[in-house]
Amino acid sequence: MVRAPESVSPMCRRTIKAARVRSNGSMRRVAFAELQGRIERVLLGLGVAPERAALGARLTAETDRDGVRTHGIARLPRFAQWVRDGVVDPRAEPERVAGFGAIERWTGHRGPGNLAAYAAMQRAMELAGEHGLGCVALADTAHWMRAGTYGWQAAEARFAAMCWTNTLPNLPPWGASSAALGNNPLVVAIPRRAIAQSGGEGESAPIVLDMAMSQFSYGTLASYRERGEALPVPGGYDEQGVLTTDAAAIERTQRALPIGFWKGSGLSFVLDVLAAMLAGGLATHDLLPDPAKEVGQSQVFLAIAPTALGTMEELSRIAQGAIDGLHAATPLQAGKPARYPGEGALRTREESLRLGVAVEDAAWEAFVRLESCADGES
Amino acid sequence: MVRAPESVSPMCRRTIKAARVRSNGSMRRVAFAELQGRIERVLLGLGVAPERAALGARLTAETDRDGVRTHGIARLPRFAQWVRDGVVDPRAEPERVAGFGAIERWTGHRGPGNLAAYAAMQRAMELAGEHGLGCVALADTAHWMRAGTYGWQAAEARFAAMCWTNTLPNLPPWGASSAALGNNPLVVAIPRRAIAQSGGEGESAPIVLDMAMSQFSYGTLASYRERGEALPVPGGYDEQGVLTTDAAAIERTQRALPIGFWKGSGLSFVLDVLAAMLAGGLATHDLLPDPAKEVGQSQVFLAIAPTALGTMEELSRIAQGAIDGLHAATPLQAGKPARYPGEGALRTREESLRLGVAVEDAAWEAFVRLESCADGES
Repeated sequence: MVRAPESVSPMCRRTIKAARVRSNGSMRRVAFAELQGRIERVLLGLGVAPERAALGARLTAETDRDGVRTHGIARLPRFAQWVRDGVVDPRAEPERVAGFGAIERWTGHRGPGNLAAYAAMQRAMELAGEHGLGCVALADTAHWMRAGTYGWQAAEARFAAMCWTNTLPNLPPWGASSAALGNNPLVVAIPRRAIAQSGGEGESAPIVLDMAMSQFSYGTLASYRERGEALPVPGGYDEQGVLTTDAAAIERTQRALPIGFWKGSGLSFVLDVLAAMLAGGLATHDLLPDPAKEVGQSQVFLAIAPTALGTMEELSRIAQGAIDGLHAATPLQAGKPARYPGEGALRTREESLRLGVAVEDAAWEAFVRLESCADGES
Repeated sequence: MVRAPESVSPMCRRTIKAARVRSNGSMRRVAFAELQGRIERVLLGLGVAPERAALGARLTAETDRDGVRTHGIARLPRFAQWVRDGVVDPRAEPERVAGFGAIERWTGHRGPGNLAAYAAMQRAMELAGEHGLGCVALADTAHWMRAGTYGWQAAEARFAAMCWTNTLPNLPPWGASSAALGNNPLVVAIPRRAIAQSGGEGESAPIVLDMAMSQFSYGTLASYRERGEALPVPGGYDEQGVLTTDAAAIERTQRALPIGFWKGSGLSFVLDVLAAMLAGGLATHDLLPDPAKEVGQSQVFLAIAPTALGTMEELSRIAQGAIDGLHAATPLQAGKPARYPGEGALRTREESLRLGVAVEDAAWEAFVRLESCADGES
């Protein structure tokens, strides 16, 4: 198995470090259960305790299942490196440090970020069950992987939710050229049931928005550059200070765009300050601008119990009306109506469970190296 | 005085209807107390009850005081028209209809939107004082004028807050060409005190973000067109479907941009659905696409009591660190550091109180016509 940091051989350390994903776009399909089981063994090998490894494996496999391939198994080599370097403590569990009524402060003790975030959202939902609303602010945690995970978690349990994280500085504020903002992903989740033919509730079909405050991540910019494609919309500034769709030029200037120019710049800033303040934790400017040491983030998890105010069927009818209105807008391409946030994920999920989870070959090979490196040592 | 709708003469009706503001950019200064007093008399004349007229006048005068000239007295002719047409009931007061713990549903009964929103945020703060968090979802209200008003209201009282409203359809969703989204202004407010030289708390200096989901409002597009200026960044699509900084072209296609393209489109949608669902009210697609009948909106007011978790001085030090980090980013123009949301408003406020509130001549003349029309009838 993969070994805890202190027992990883120098050879294996190099293997983990080299296991960055370089995609050429070719894909394979892996059964969901196989994917989950193999991730679980890797996490156990990294020193994550059994129940927590099972949860972490499920969340990671679900990320690939829903088509968010940048934040599923493709991130495991980086997680393994954080553990190996002692940046993330695989055994640390989140802990409540203060609270008043429906709001609590927790600390993550720099344990696995997705496990801490999941626990924080569970606790926010418990508080919302009791008070109608609940909030957990989490300090000193680590990268939470896929932001949307905690939105789906809440919405599947019939809670609306907002959550966000700060990040290391990776975005220039409006009016400046050096990175002083994080891209601070924000999630808004809304529970919804399909309206059954017979009336009454059909299956769960949440609306989940998962968006970072940069128009494109540096990972996305790199991927456009490697494919030699122009960005679909301007993503930042070139050396002449002109808006450009040339990903390589933006990589050179490091002047990526916040969404909506001055607006996303402002939104990123307030999310950062509010998270740090509520959590009593670090703000973006306190975080090291080094992805190899990306730890200590502040996060907010807010759950709302709409079923305290109306039945799920009534609430779902309101959501359905809005979805119908969106779908009725004149599409730019015939037959391709505008989609609501989460609509694509539900389609990909169904396909993944039917045909197997689509995984990029490069990510899969890196994952297999993580496994085999471990096997060679056990 | 200005008369309640049933008593306004046909001549006066035309006067109110014609009182749209066409600015040529020239300005005057009016003392804050004079501005507030004269607005109060206009509101009384429109049938708003005395205490409520005083509050409405303060909120409107403060909007101009802070430099948000599009949503202060420049909006009063439109408000008068809504009252005259029976769209807004000047006597209607908001009312609680349901609640559970820290969350409540209210209805606005289509009364003056700023008064209902102010009452909703006050109640959200009361709930947050009791539970750490509080939320009021308000259905069937009317235009709330300046969104930021309710953020400043909360932050000055030491609460953090988020609030948002839906609007009539005025923005195409990403992938479509017809308006199916609202521009749904969102406010995030953070209380903060300056750090006094002596240590301890200085004066209140909140961080308040107030942003709509469209990159530019149609009002702003019109103003660029009238001045013959290009937009500072692309604001929508021209007839060839190409991103443009030509405001007139965007007015022709009606394809204004959501902030961040697909991202703002998604954020606008989830804010709409969540507001309608929590309020048990109307969503954007239910609202008439007619600014003359802009009523029935759903809104959410969320207050958070950070002082339940830490002292205001500790919280303010976290905010100050983030502000210092922002100000330290390399400015694009020497000597003009990036600003935090609300920083400009505080400077304008100080100047307004010292020199008088800057008011556009055209808006002032329209306001005086509102007054004199009333005087002619009283």
